[in-house]
Amino acid sequence: MSKNIVIIGAGPGGYPAALKAASLGAKVTVIEKKAVGGTCLNCGCIPSKSLLDAAHRFDIVKKIPSLAIEESITANPDWNKISLRRKNVIERFQKSILSMFNTAGITYIEGRAKFKNDSEVELLTQEGMKIIHFDSAVLAAGTHPFIPEIFKGIDILDNSNVFDIPKLPQTITILGGGVIGCEFASLFNSLGVKVTIIEMQPALVPGEDETSIRTLTQSFKKRGINILTSVIADKARVENGKKIITLSTGEDIAADEILVAVGRTAHLGDIGLENIGVPWTRRGVEVNPQTLHLAKNIYAVGDVNGLCLLAHAASKQGEVAASNICGHKEVYNNNLIPRAMYTSPEVASAGLNKAQAEKAGYEVKIQRAFFLANGRAQTQDETEGQLQIFSDAKTLKILGAAIAGPNASEMIHIFSVAIAAGMTTTRLKDVVFAHPSLSEIITEALAK
Amino acid sequence: MSKNIVIIGAGPGGYPAALKAASLGAKVTVIEKKAVGGTCLNCGCIPSKSLLDAAHRFDIVKKIPSLAIEESITANPDWNKISLRRKNVIERFQKSILSMFNTAGITYIEGRAKFKNDSEVELLTQEGMKIIHFDSAVLAAGTHPFIPEIFKGIDILDNSNVFDIPKLPQTITILGGGVIGCEFASLFNSLGVKVTIIEMQPALVPGEDETSIRTLTQSFKKRGINILTSVIADKARVENGKKIITLSTGEDIAADEILVAVGRTAHLGDIGLENIGVPWTRRGVEVNPQTLHLAKNIYAVGDVNGLCLLAHAASKQGEVAASNICGHKEVYNNNLIPRAMYTSPEVASAGLNKAQAEKAGYEVKIQRAFFLANGRAQTQDETEGQLQIFSDAKTLKILGAAIAGPNASEMIHIFSVAIAAGMTTTRLKDVVFAHPSLSEIITEALAK
Repeated sequence: MSKNIVIIGAGPGGYPAALKAASLGAKVTVIEKKAVGGTCLNCGCIPSKSLLDAAHRFDIVKKIPSLAIEESITANPDWNKISLRRKNVIERFQKSILSMFNTAGITYIEGRAKFKNDSEVELLTQEGMKIIHFDSAVLAAGTHPFIPEIFKGIDILDNSNVFDIPKLPQTITILGGGVIGCEFASLFNSLGVKVTIIEMQPALVPGEDETSIRTLTQSFKKRGINILTSVIADKARVENGKKIITLSTGEDIAADEILVAVGRTAHLGDIGLENIGVPWTRRGVEVNPQTLHLAKNIYAVGDVNGLCLLAHAASKQGEVAASNICGHKEVYNNNLIPRAMYTSPEVASAGLNKAQAEKAGYEVKIQRAFFLANGRAQTQDETEGQLQIFSDAKTLKILGAAIAGPNASEMIHIFSVAIAAGMTTTRLKDVVFAHPSLSEIITEALAK
Repeated sequence: MSKNIVIIGAGPGGYPAALKAASLGAKVTVIEKKAVGGTCLNCGCIPSKSLLDAAHRFDIVKKIPSLAIEESITANPDWNKISLRRKNVIERFQKSILSMFNTAGITYIEGRAKFKNDSEVELLTQEGMKIIHFDSAVLAAGTHPFIPEIFKGIDILDNSNVFDIPKLPQTITILGGGVIGCEFASLFNSLGVKVTIIEMQPALVPGEDETSIRTLTQSFKKRGINILTSVIADKARVENGKKIITLSTGEDIAADEILVAVGRTAHLGDIGLENIGVPWTRRGVEVNPQTLHLAKNIYAVGDVNGLCLLAHAASKQGEVAASNICGHKEVYNNNLIPRAMYTSPEVASAGLNKAQAEKAGYEVKIQRAFFLANGRAQTQDETEGQLQIFSDAKTLKILGAAIAGPNASEMIHIFSVAIAAGMTTTRLKDVVFAHPSLSEIITEALAK
């Protein structure tokens, strides 16, 4: 008889887990409290990339007079049109996930789930309450934006409501210079909004490669984004229609809107974890980082286990957990997850960065090349940034790579594959890249 | 004592050969009869990509009203501005090559070279004639466009003069639907020129993957490019300022300009090959396809040996030949050269295609996915095309890949690396791609 699996959450962790489990013969029920696709599809990766693409197009239009007969060309972003395009993309993918569920024989229910014990969840929907039995379960409940106390009573934006603002503000303060903060800074700036970023740490995107972030920061400054680092938001108030943050320095930063992107938090209070004996905090639950096992017959994947707050990590985890539930032995490896920021310029990395590699005991060889010397980058006027390749100085095995520049979010996968294959830099140097391509920067770096 | 090496031609075959030989301790003299950088830099890859990028930008501007307040936006390509940008890029790279020569202690001479025997070339420059002694030589003389007899006395364009036309024509006939013909068709179409392609074969780009070419052809037709296949240009004439080609069907095709792109030919008549006992034809010379050895102490690289008419193949060959001359044992492998067309949509392939793999005795497994289902493709409205992965049905070893769609010319390198690493599809399936990225189409294809 096939296994009954209940999956809580239909985001990028839950839905791949469901599809994988169904493909392995399980009877799967997915319970989602909000919208199929989770944060990623509804208010994360997909809508932000739709907006970033619009922003990128307006950047190109701004520069077109350098190639056109017209000395100046006016194109003002229409927030309604941009929003409609975003909504359409989301809807298409929601339909597509539901259709895949349908084809795979997966039961999808919108409602709230609560563990009663280790074989039953209580399901609360508009139609009432019922008990669903399970042999195994996957917790893929996701996270929510963390909102500091100082904003109590103030209408602020976070990634869950920023897409629904009725019109573009003239000015915005972004609290938090991490990945989300920087992506919104980039897109609002391109759409003509005056942006200030407030970051507590001394630099943007703590944890990402320092050289890449230096490139991004310089580019942001050149584009007129105001970056304040090593400062804390002490207080917030509304005055004359402006939203004002008072910094630890005493300075006031006023804007039409405030976007808060200072991290994520898990809301697990009403999910019945106490009934299955699982402790949790605002950071989520603790799983075995390889098997993703949580407790008894229950696994947890995605943001909720805190291993890696990226959609593609969640999806891989979902598949690994589903396989393990169905009797296979699969292992999740956090080090194989690439990281990408869709800012302008893009920033991406794979494998270990320099600091991580040194911490792991390697003597690190760094090979660098700059897009300024790259033929394709020159032909398309995108010459900011560089590639860095990190290898083991002894064996020349590739440990990681960091890119800031055009196409970084796609080119990084060349390194994902090289790392997965255990390639050395000597071997990668033999690979021929098409001319002219941005990827030729790899040959250039390895020639040094 | 260090070896004296003479290199004839400073294009993408010759200049990497020179830099490699110099880095290995040789005393190098490069003789170039026209312009440093060869066809690739002066009238090939680089200028065409500069124009294709301009074309791409105008394509984006055309679509911007769908995201802007303005209902319509006018931007007309300024051929002078576009040409100036192209010239600037070329100049930058010419300077850069000369500066690399200078740093490496390479002697660069503009003039004509002619083999006197297997240790001397006659050098003819504006200053007169002199004899240069060599221990080894590299022939990297390149090719020229082949112009059929029917155009005798008619002012036609080819890749060497098309960039210098004083203004954009209203209509153009492109004879030859290969890579060069298609790239120009794509860019002229985007710049508002009415384009007709005439191709002798039943389909565009013979030799490239058929499915990819079907995608390209459909897209070209949708954009209004007139494609005539399985027809031959019988006659040509000028009438009332129009340039007219009469087809084998009797039909006349009239346009402001004709661009001929029906293949390349070697002009080796005055290079003294008879003095070193080397036979040649219009297709060039015949080398050992692995060592690139031509005769005695002479090697030949790039277009002139006919192995692969691509700039990056020439560069790899140049490096291999230089290494072999300097006592190393390096081998060139034509199968490891990726192929890319910078049309809209882009088309690229690596390794073996289906037909080649079958010919090599493999039972070929094909795995396909479409950009229509890809998140990033959807967010940026570039959903045409597909990826195909060819593997050995028995071992699952990846043999090749073909892509038609966004970023194909860069994404193809993921397969170059996977093929070089001898990866199976099972292994590649384990690699995690960032979400949302176009590269996720790989996971999608491998899930099937």
